[in-house]
Formats: sequence, structure tokens, C-alpha cells
Amino acid sequence: MSAKRRAKPVSVESKQQPLREGAPLTRLVARLPPTVPFTGPETLERRSGRTFALRLGANESNFGPSPHAREAMRAAIERIACYADPEVYELRLALARLHGVGIEHIVVGSGIDDLLGLIVRAFVEPGDVVVTAAGAYPTVPFHIAGYGGRQELVRYLDDAGGLRNDLDALAEAANRTNARLVYLANPDNPTGSWYRGDAVRAFLDKLPSGSLLLLDEAYIELAPIDDPSDPGILLPMNPDDPRLLRLRTFSKAYGMAGARVGYAIGRPEVIAAFDRIRLHFGVNLVAQMGALAALEDTDYLRYVAAEVARGREEYAALARELGMIPQPSATNFVAMDVGSSTCARALLAALAEQGVFIRMPGAPPLDRCVRVTVGTPAERAIFADILRKIWPQVTHVADS
Amino acid sequence: MSAKRRAKPVSVESKQQPLREGAPLTRLVARLPPTVPFTGPETLERRSGRTFALRLGANESNFGPSPHAREAMRAAIERIACYADPEVYELRLALARLHGVGIEHIVVGSGIDDLLGLIVRAFVEPGDVVVTAAGAYPTVPFHIAGYGGRQELVRYLDDAGGLRNDLDALAEAANRTNARLVYLANPDNPTGSWYRGDAVRAFLDKLPSGSLLLLDEAYIELAPIDDPSDPGILLPMNPDDPRLLRLRTFSKAYGMAGARVGYAIGRPEVIAAFDRIRLHFGVNLVAQMGALAALEDTDYLRYVAAEVARGREEYAALARELGMIPQPSATNFVAMDVGSSTCARALLAALAEQGVFIRMPGAPPLDRCVRVTVGTPAERAIFADILRKIWPQVTHVADS
Repeated sequence: MSAKRRAKPVSVESKQQPLREGAPLTRLVARLPPTVPFTGPETLERRSGRTFALRLGANESNFGPSPHAREAMRAAIERIACYADPEVYELRLALARLHGVGIEHIVVGSGIDDLLGLIVRAFVEPGDVVVTAAGAYPTVPFHIAGYGGRQELVRYLDDAGGLRNDLDALAEAANRTNARLVYLANPDNPTGSWYRGDAVRAFLDKLPSGSLLLLDEAYIELAPIDDPSDPGILLPMNPDDPRLLRLRTFSKAYGMAGARVGYAIGRPEVIAAFDRIRLHFGVNLVAQMGALAALEDTDYLRYVAAEVARGREEYAALARELGMIPQPSATNFVAMDVGSSTCARALLAALAEQGVFIRMPGAPPLDRCVRVTVGTPAERAIFADILRKIWPQVTHVADS
Repeated sequence: MSAKRRAKPVSVESKQQPLREGAPLTRLVARLPPTVPFTGPETLERRSGRTFALRLGANESNFGPSPHAREAMRAAIERIACYADPEVYELRLALARLHGVGIEHIVVGSGIDDLLGLIVRAFVEPGDVVVTAAGAYPTVPFHIAGYGGRQELVRYLDDAGGLRNDLDALAEAANRTNARLVYLANPDNPTGSWYRGDAVRAFLDKLPSGSLLLLDEAYIELAPIDDPSDPGILLPMNPDDPRLLRLRTFSKAYGMAGARVGYAIGRPEVIAAFDRIRLHFGVNLVAQMGALAALEDTDYLRYVAAEVARGREEYAALARELGMIPQPSATNFVAMDVGSSTCARALLAALAEQGVFIRMPGAPPLDRCVRVTVGTPAERAIFADILRKIWPQVTHVADS
């Protein structure tokens, strides 16, 4: 085109000019720390030059996705040249049917991480307070800091009832600070603990007006159902409650962490606000088609939940056998209290030496624990062998 | 667990309380319009109850991805239960090699849309100015508004040289407003026009210090190379230039729009800033593995570029045959100037009636054009038949 002919040659002067400085970062971003919420296992592998043989640290589902979801994702590859539907309509419709709500109550994002970022962006002005437990999901403080919010941290309960969220203290902190957002994971990560739906409902009723409860239910499909006539962990669905936003994901029970898809359920006014700021073409095609197929395979979901329940019991028995205190869990992992932070760190390192990737929470009192994802029966057998072998050495070194 | 026993029943009082209001949106988000950057073809289909038979409106690559990339993406499905590497290390390494830069010069995101949002967030304080062409990629103003920035719009040139960016006016606007960011697509969307690398270099030298040029090179792999000894459209790579951030994608020539993967090349200080705010686990596994394989298949990329060049010529001939003015294009689409906005709108509607999805730019003077993606030879033949059939009716109605 004619631009070619019009182009002026670069002058020698311009080449010799020193480089100018470019644009400065915003004041907010400039003062953010260069830390990341999680160091990935791949990074640890590159640092150590050693590959993990057992990946039990990220609460992925080693049972994988439903075969139907797998098939749908393979079919999506055939259409991958096309952008996916920016409204994520089919998946939202299926989710609305599943939960007995309207499509206007559902927004889909690239995982709960994406949705958490959008929520903090939509509701937190610089200086506004978000209440979370100290040691809760690290991506929450990452986003709070990223938008200039202020964290109010509440220590986990640590008594005969086990390590768990302190609902009274969380509600007290929210009222004291006039918090905008309150984050609660139920079931909880990294403890695995959980509250019944009626306890969550009572907690919600204690929060200050003008606040929104982010109820992260990433693991809820894995929670035990002792008595089908008892709602148990499930908070009854009132999608128009202006005080509540529920977060769900396909990364855990559905086995699709690598696909990036999660959703929020909330009142239409809040859901509509996402459209003002979300990446409209952000939820990829494989994720959309895979999630839709995964939802239909309820048998597979039940199979995974049953396998995970079996694994939790095995882990609990193993921990007790070795003198650790396994925390009750409604998730696909078990936090094992090994007595001290020193011991937990030593165990983490010793397991890494053996090619086992697990994690430990950083904040006290949780830092007495290591957190182990429920693997397949074969993986659990290998893990048990390794743990039985190295545990005496770890306790010996940690004691000395 | 014991939480079950401790839970208090929900009181009747709490059930009867009126719902409180929940958290207010931030002042910034509250005043954002509920508009979306693009209405997807699926939404148009749902509205009309009619399915598009030809999808030529989103500049997707109807040639699809490389067979090797397809194979790699199918393999990724087998590992989809795992989170992908948050550092995107392997892909960044391959991209660094391709461009002869360091891995510290590359950040990968979920498409250019994602990267654009992060850049605006990192550099634009409320009230800061971003200079763009009026009618440029709609996701740019979406993000500018989303972070409270102010747009300074520059009209496209419209003379015998064709519809194209007005580099002098863009530089003037940037200096006049002391702009933080300047957005330029080269090759351009939606005109298809392009400037030589030396013209872009001269433009960069005219921008004010304290600004950053976002050079969106989404279509650059499709630009014609007339003479291999001439750098042509390619701005020479100086990855440490603090004034420049280059944006690339796998959505266009690589045929992976539905996978969501793009990258930016810039100086390490700017690239490192992304880590403070990006979604660290955001780039999905299928995208990472597919992009890595796509990069290796340079033969396929050449094949697509040659096919697209053939299609551009066919479209130009077709447009001329019907009395339209095809704009020269270095992309996988051709903007056809049909003489008036009224006529362009009528043509868009008539094509939709026939099951053909295309788009038209909204801002004058571009709104005289319809923008048609280069399809496969079979799609182009069908499109040509339909266009020849309906064009006389459209001009008849538009004239009356």
C-alpha cells in the first residue's frame, strides 16, 4: 500500500538518541511486591533439577475428568480456531438448571482466581477492608493488595475441635472494620474443615450491612453426605441474596484444573457488574465444552467423590499410625498436623527429595501441618510407603 | 467434624429480616456503561434464531491450527486435571529463541485482550490519557474506561492512500495530552492497512517521553513479504526499548483463537511488572502446549500466510468487480469500502439474512466499510456467490 512509499527513512539522529524512560507504573502497582501467590511445581522442578514423581500438592483431581468431558474437550480442539461464545450461554444455562436459578444469576470465569480478581476490582476501593483468615487461599491477599485493599486477618481456631475458621472472630472483624468483602472457604483450604449450611447462614446474618460474603465452595462437591435428608454443608440457595456471592469451580471434583473454568452465583445486579469489567472472550472453548459435558456426567462425579472419601480415610489412618493428627476434611486433601512448623518443613523437604510434591500452609497455627492431596489408590500406596520410610528420619532430625 | 455439633440452628428472626443491600460497587465500576466490546456471533444467532453458515466476521483462521498443534492440544487433554505451569516457561523459552531475545523479555497471557487489560491497569491512573485511533480495536477503549483512563481519539486518514492510521496526528495527540499509552495496530484492524517498520520507528521517536507504545502485531505473521532482503513491515527487535511493548497472538495466523494465548515482548522491568498483577495460573494447559507445537511448524504458518494472501487477492478482485473499493490488507481480512454507512449496514444485514457473519467498523470514516475475513477457498466461493446475488438488491434499497 501507499504507506510504503510515504515512509520516511529513520534519521541517524533518532538512532543516536538515548532511550527515554517509557511510562511509569501506577503508584499502586509500583509499590506491589514482586511475590507470586504460589510457586508452581514446575518451578520447583527447574530449581532442583529433579522431576516430581508424585504430584500431591495442588489439590488437583488425579482421577481426571469424566470420559464424556474428555471427549467433549477433544471435539473442542477441532473448532479451536474459533473464539468461544463470550456469553458462555450454554454452560450458564446448564448451571442455572443444576442450581435451580436463572441464567442471570450465573457468571463464568477462567477459574475462581479470575472471578476473585474481578470481585475485588468491582467492590474494593483503595483502603477498603477485606476480612480473611490468616493462611487462607493466597490468591485472595494477592488480589486485595493488587487493588489497594486492606486485609484484616483472623487467626484460625486451634482447639479440640481442630483447625478451622473462627466464624465469630471473622464476623467481629467484619463489623469492627466495616469490611466490604468477607472471604470464607467452605469446605476450607488448607485445613479441609467445614461448617454446616445453617452455621454459614447464621454467620452471614452477623455480617455488617454493606458487605458481601465471598463463599468459596471450590471443594463442595467432595463434601461427605451422611444423611441425604439433611442439607448438611449446603447453604440453601437464595440467589437473590445481596449479601452473598458463591464461587464454584471445575478444577477440583470435575478434574479440569488445567482448563480454567469456574463460576459465581449471585444476584443479577452483581452478576451484571462482571460484564463491565470481565474479559468477554476469556473463557476458552475447551473449558466451555468440557465443563458442559462434565456437568451431565453425574455418575462420574459420584465415583470421584466416593474415591476421594476413601482416600481421606486412608490418609487419616496413615497419619494416626505415624503419630500425626489428621484434620477432618470435606475436600480432596488432608492436612496432617505433625506437631511443629520445623517438623512440617523438614517433612516437606524430605518428601521433595523423594520426588513427592505436597504443600504446607505458611501461617501459624496452620504451619504445623502438611497438606496432602488424595491421589489414586496406586499413588496413595506409593505415598504411604515413602512416608513410612522417611518419617522416622524426619522426626529424628527435627527433634535434634 | 465437630463444627457440625457446634452449629446453631438458624433463628426464625434472622429469616424474617429484610435482605440488606450488600456491598456497593466502587465509584469507578458503578459508572461504567453496561456495554460489551463485541457482540459475539452466538448472541446474534440466539437473537435471530438463525445459525450462521459462514463465519467470516471475527478474523479467525478458518484454515485451523497446525496438525502438530492439534495433536499437542489433544495430548494436553490427557493432562487437563493438572494446573498448567504458572511461569509458562517452555513456551516463553521457545518465543525468546524465535525472536532472539531473553525469556525475561516475554510474558504470556490469555490472548492480547488479557495483556491489554493488564497493561492499562499497570500504567493508567484514573484520568491518564491513552491515544488510539477512533474505530480501532474495541477492547482497548473497554479497558481504558474500565480503569478510569481517558481516551484521546484520532481520526483515521481517508484519502487516495486509503483508510489508515494517521501517524502524525497520533504523535501530535500523544504530545499534546502527555499520553501514558499510545495504541497502534500494525497491520491495522479493522482497515487491514500497515506501515513499514522504519515508519513505526520514526513514529516511536516522535512520542513524548513518559509514554509507552503498545504495538499490536496480532496479524503480523500474515503480512506480505515482497522482498526477503527488505525488513518491510517488521520493526527491528530492540527488546530493551523502554518506550515499546509489542503484542502478539496465536489467535490469527496460528488458528488458535478459542485456546486464548498471546504474548508481549518488552524490557524486563516492564515484563516483571506483569507478575505483580497477572493471573498466575491463567494460561490454560491446552493453550500452552498447543502454542509450543504451533511455533515449531513453520511450514504450516507459511502455508496459511500464502492461502490468506491468495484469499485477499480474490476478495479485492470481487470487491472491484462489484464497484466497491477494497482496502489494501496485510491481515486475514479485507475491508471493502461500499460507499456509505447506510449501504454498509444494509449489506451487513442482507448477508446475515443469508447466513453470513461479517462485521463493520462503527466509527467514521471506517463505517463505509464491511470487513470480511479470508475463509477457505470453498467458503470464499460461497461468499462470492452470495455477495454477487444480494449486492444489486442492497445498492437498490440503499439508494432509494
